[in-house]
Amino acid sequence: MQILKEKIIRYGELIADSIIKVDSFLNHQLDIDLFNEMGREFKKRFQDTTITKILTLESSGIAVACITAQYFQVPVVFAKKHEAANLGADTYHAAVYSFTKDKLYQIRVAKDYLLPQDKILIIDDFLATGQAINGLLEIVSQAGAEAMGIGVVIEKGFQKGREKINNQQIQLESLAIIEEIHDGKIIFQ
Amino acid sequence: MQILKEKIIRYGELIADSIIKVDSFLNHQLDIDLFNEMGREFKKRFQDTTITKILTLESSGIAVACITAQYFQVPVVFAKKHEAANLGADTYHAAVYSFTKDKLYQIRVAKDYLLPQDKILIIDDFLATGQAINGLLEIVSQAGAEAMGIGVVIEKGFQKGREKINNQQIQLESLAIIEEIHDGKIIFQ
Repeated sequence: MQILKEKIIRYGELIADSIIKVDSFLNHQLDIDLFNEMGREFKKRFQDTTITKILTLESSGIAVACITAQYFQVPVVFAKKHEAANLGADTYHAAVYSFTKDKLYQIRVAKDYLLPQDKILIIDDFLATGQAINGLLEIVSQAGAEAMGIGVVIEKGFQKGREKINNQQIQLESLAIIEEIHDGKIIFQ
Repeated sequence: MQILKEKIIRYGELIADSIIKVDSFLNHQLDIDLFNEMGREFKKRFQDTTITKILTLESSGIAVACITAQYFQVPVVFAKKHEAANLGADTYHAAVYSFTKDKLYQIRVAKDYLLPQDKILIIDDFLATGQAINGLLEIVSQAGAEAMGIGVVIEKGFQKGREKINNQQIQLESLAIIEEIHDGKIIFQ
């Protein structure tokens, strides 16, 4: 998606060799016009797929999931990764290791909000090592629902997350794929 | 807002005397059609107010802020309350005590994303004791920006947050105000 790649080049900040900070439009300040472009693009890429619900992960997946949901006319459910006083005990859950934060999270979804008949589109902001996506796939599987597709905004191709997705049959669409970061330059696939 | 009150009555779960759980449409599963109704309503209530940016607090404020931002055609900035590896040190910040979780948070916004010329609409899902809103007002003040209005989805009137807002001149709009919870019944103002 050309406009997204231009934003990444123009506003992305490289932190170390593998972390790209896009706080000015994706992760802290949110460019809602761009999010609408992304939502339209996800709809285009999954136009023939039946979707009943979008599943994402707090916090940074929520914005893109919500704007995208408008194009599919479905509700969003976000997995919680922080303690939530009133989430209740009856949850699907998976362990997700964050390399960025060097921390193991439990991500959880209340059983009430994922049903066996649900056809799920997983949306997230980044695909890096695939940990978060695999955690969400695990939760969909526990619910007996069907994962129909995965849409991510930025795929860090060099971290090989795509190959580590536990379901290799599922359609995976990334709006921008970074092949490598070399000498402070971002090279797209 | 009638449709919201009906949702609260129909789907809200009372937890203890002061916590109302609205996970089925507002805080875990997100009813995007309802969010669009809320966004339109906020725009109506602040139609004569110049707004350049919406400020909210992760995680549960993000969805309503993003959908609402479409009606104001402005970007969203969300204050971070969880550790963020790459937020950087140059932040505005405020301490916010959460009664629900009995925990003191630091909420933070990178200085890059709030400018002195910004005219801010603060959006959040709940107004209870006013702690979160006051933290956001403090951050707006640190940036030298101007807080133009506060929009919340559900105000728990009985917790008197409205009276505790540090800026009593600012326009505060709640889409549903719960006056009291009595014998397991929710009574709106």
